[in-house]
Amino acid sequence: MKIETLAIVGVGLIGTSIGLAARRRGLAGRVVGHDCRTTALDTARSRGAIDAATSTIAQAVGQAQVVVVCTPVEQIANHVIESALAGAPGTLVTDTGSTKGAIVADVEARLPPGVNFVGSHPLAGSEKQGAEHADAALFEGKVAVVARTPRTDPVALDQASGFWTSLGMRVRLMDPREHDWALAVTSHLPHLTAAALASVLPEQLHELAAGGFRDSTRVAAGEPAIWTGIFTQNRSNIRKALDSLDLVIARFRTALESTDQAEIAELLARAKKVRDALGN
Amino acid sequence: MKIETLAIVGVGLIGTSIGLAARRRGLAGRVVGHDCRTTALDTARSRGAIDAATSTIAQAVGQAQVVVVCTPVEQIANHVIESALAGAPGTLVTDTGSTKGAIVADVEARLPPGVNFVGSHPLAGSEKQGAEHADAALFEGKVAVVARTPRTDPVALDQASGFWTSLGMRVRLMDPREHDWALAVTSHLPHLTAAALASVLPEQLHELAAGGFRDSTRVAAGEPAIWTGIFTQNRSNIRKALDSLDLVIARFRTALESTDQAEIAELLARAKKVRDALGN
Repeated sequence: MKIETLAIVGVGLIGTSIGLAARRRGLAGRVVGHDCRTTALDTARSRGAIDAATSTIAQAVGQAQVVVVCTPVEQIANHVIESALAGAPGTLVTDTGSTKGAIVADVEARLPPGVNFVGSHPLAGSEKQGAEHADAALFEGKVAVVARTPRTDPVALDQASGFWTSLGMRVRLMDPREHDWALAVTSHLPHLTAAALASVLPEQLHELAAGGFRDSTRVAAGEPAIWTGIFTQNRSNIRKALDSLDLVIARFRTALESTDQAEIAELLARAKKVRDALGN
Repeated sequence: MKIETLAIVGVGLIGTSIGLAARRRGLAGRVVGHDCRTTALDTARSRGAIDAATSTIAQAVGQAQVVVVCTPVEQIANHVIESALAGAPGTLVTDTGSTKGAIVADVEARLPPGVNFVGSHPLAGSEKQGAEHADAALFEGKVAVVARTPRTDPVALDQASGFWTSLGMRVRLMDPREHDWALAVTSHLPHLTAAALASVLPEQLHELAAGGFRDSTRVAAGEPAIWTGIFTQNRSNIRKALDSLDLVIARFRTALESTDQAEIAELLARAKKVRDALGN
């Protein structure tokens, strides 16, 4: 895959990392970036992630064959539509949002003809934010979910898949709603428990929070505004995932109350089996 | 501090790492190890963590000025008493258990005269087990809790503190019950949530469990038998810590149910503040 001009809307950690990776891998001849924050644009340009910065989405998109919208989830649908309205016929627009159901449904209801949209979610990131933490290797070896719906154009689906593959990712096609349930379990629920764990740590115990606590709560350092949008868009699935978690926690609680060592051991063994299967 | 002979009872990850660290730092002239598992003893010796292996605790302790008991928490009190009975007058016995209240109370009720015991808990470890994963640098820069009770001998307390300091640790003196409450929050509760999170991950979603899930559940790979002992000994405190966690989770749940974005943002911001304060 080779893109003459790639437009990136939103040059935070993800957008800037895409620019860096596309440049390093020779995927795009030229990368144009837009962001409403000029400091982010300056950082992205000084890091070599974008060749040019534009002050409007239309300016960035007008020159591009592929547009990646990397803004917070609650803004993505509008930015995709704005991109589509400014795009030349045949332009492919995709995104990087951590939720897919609401975004894809909203975009498909409003997408102007001539431009293709395929929702995406590269499963790569960091609890650190901003263009300054971007990393050209962020996507290598990771999974990108590409959302397929009955309305998805097959050629555009191939193009979007090829885009992520070119950045070193493995692509998994999923229905947007299936994605949102999966991510509620694999990402949003751990974020919630990490935040809850961090919240119950009193200051006088900070010194005693060792590696286990730090690992378990690392994602809680993520940007609250970003995650408020994700939690809000995926709230039903997160509640369902929380119900599943509560059942296991309740079993632990009962086992602790009754000093049921066999049950504690079984719960821990079951968890270890899953965690071991994931590897590092 | 310089110990002529150091005895290590239990050469798993922690015991073997202590041997390696004591050798590297010139803390002990000689290190003798005991374990009921001969393969662990072989590994510890081949890695240079111990000079000699003994088939009984008494043989190891008889030659030592300092004894460190590094066995699972439910065995520690008995191993300390066995060490004390075999130790020469003035021998210092300490341990590395992740719980302190039950162990220290049990030992203090049974300790023979002439030998000193000071409970310890070096806050260092790994989800990996065994002498083969031991690391001479495991303790460097970490915190060791040293348990102080009304019955603790002040000279022995200094010796035990000096032992951990010599391994590169910062020492914090705590009442055993205070330790157990603190560790319920900083270590045992995160272990429980990590195990619960791992348990709710169905196999078809393994591929979608990215860095956040892996970090949040890393400790769930810990050895179930070891952690069953810890959970059992500290069950009351863990239940109390779980109560605190449940209150925060309930606030998240209510906020998700009512789509209360301000509340979600506040909960996440509060968590981020704590997590940021911990650093990496």
